Amino acid sequence: MYHNESVKIYNELSNQKESFKGQILFELGDIEIKINGKDGVGGLVEEWFGAWCEGKGFDIESANKNSGSQSFPDFFIEGDKLLEVKTFDADASANFDLANFDSYCKSVSENPKRVDSDYLIFSYRMVDGNLSIQDIWLKKIWEITCPSERWPLKTQTKKDVIYNIRPAAWYSDKPRFKTFNSRDEFINALFKTQQEYAGISYLKDYQSNFFK
Amino acid sequence: MYHNESVKIYNELSNQKESFKGQILFELGDIEIKINGKDGVGGLVEEWFGAWCEGKGFDIESANKNSGSQSFPDFFIEGDKLLEVKTFDADASANFDLANFDSYCKSVSENPKRVDSDYLIFSYRMVDGNLSIQDIWLKKIWEITCPSERWPLKTQTKKDVIYNIRPAAWYSDKPRFKTFNSRDEFINALFKTQQEYAGISYLKDYQSNFFK
Repeated sequence: MYHNESVKIYNELSNQKESFKGQILFELGDIEIKINGKDGVGGLVEEWFGAWCEGKGFDIESANKNSGSQSFPDFFIEGDKLLEVKTFDADASANFDLANFDSYCKSVSENPKRVDSDYLIFSYRMVDGNLSIQDIWLKKIWEITCPSERWPLKTQTKKDVIYNIRPAAWYSDKPRFKTFNSRDEFINALFKTQQEYAGISYLKDYQSNFFK
Repeated sequence: MYHNESVKIYNELSNQKESFKGQILFELGDIEIKINGKDGVGGLVEEWFGAWCEGKGFDIESANKNSGSQSFPDFFIEGDKLLEVKTFDADASANFDLANFDSYCKSVSENPKRVDSDYLIFSYRMVDGNLSIQDIWLKKIWEITCPSERWPLKTQTKKDVIYNIRPAAWYSDKPRFKTFNSRDEFINALFKTQQEYAGISYLKDYQSNFFK
């Protein structure tokens, strides 16, 4: 199910997991500090992961070396397959953005292979500036997404506006909502959410015209 | 106009500005990399600034040592006065969030001294992992905010929903919108925006009840 190279990468990462301990040092002027904040950890782990793969000679290429970690995809493997890297604090729940909802709907209809992206997910722990990798997962999107009370697909929704696709608690023994069982279940939930949401979006357009 | 201790801090920072060069090192397992991404720089500079002030013996205390950089305020100076630290990439425009719009309106009516917070702003440049501080400003909020086409106060607005108060291009010779001339001008723009927006918000509430 996963891309061959992703499986190799995942196995090697899992073997070495215990050694993934470290720190973030920030040097500026004559001060050097060990960083305890978690704000930038996701971006740092992604950049580190690229360097780690390069050192090991894996067939992977960073897709956004200079464009920041917001663009899609994070990495190409085996030339043209997609790999996303996600990170979350093991002492909280997974709350990263899987993708912007609108862009994802659009790109899936234009480029269906996006649904087959592999997701490599790291959870970390930061204690007094000491960072360690806690767990590593290799997943497909339907294994880390779920329904929600509000929509067939769990999303970040504020004031009736959908922003991002948000992850399920796939790592939990007693999740409130279970992950989807298949690629098709995920796709159905995505388009059902889009349909229900479109009704509301049309009314919003009407309303903002009304105010012009 | 600014708090005394802020002025001292600002002067000392400005004197040393040329020496504020450095890097971010990320060590994990047996790999050490120099980080070139800009994602976490704001949080790092804020944490560094706290350590720098401590080393110099300034009368300042971090208000959110363990709660991340999202909370308000960033620092207390002289015991109870407020200092916010903001950071932006000198090769782009200032696009940090000054505050969440709703929370700011609420907290200003409950605690008017929030309007008198000092803002210490750093612009930086990151080239091949080499970080340097480019400029430093000490400002009041009305000196770094402005009107916009959409609202009397420039805000981040998506699909008719206002999220954050966003900065003017106060550092530009030819800004599209000039900053406010006084505290009162800023306050007027804030409450006029809230009034105009409330009309839309009420309709939004009506609409979401309609859909329940």
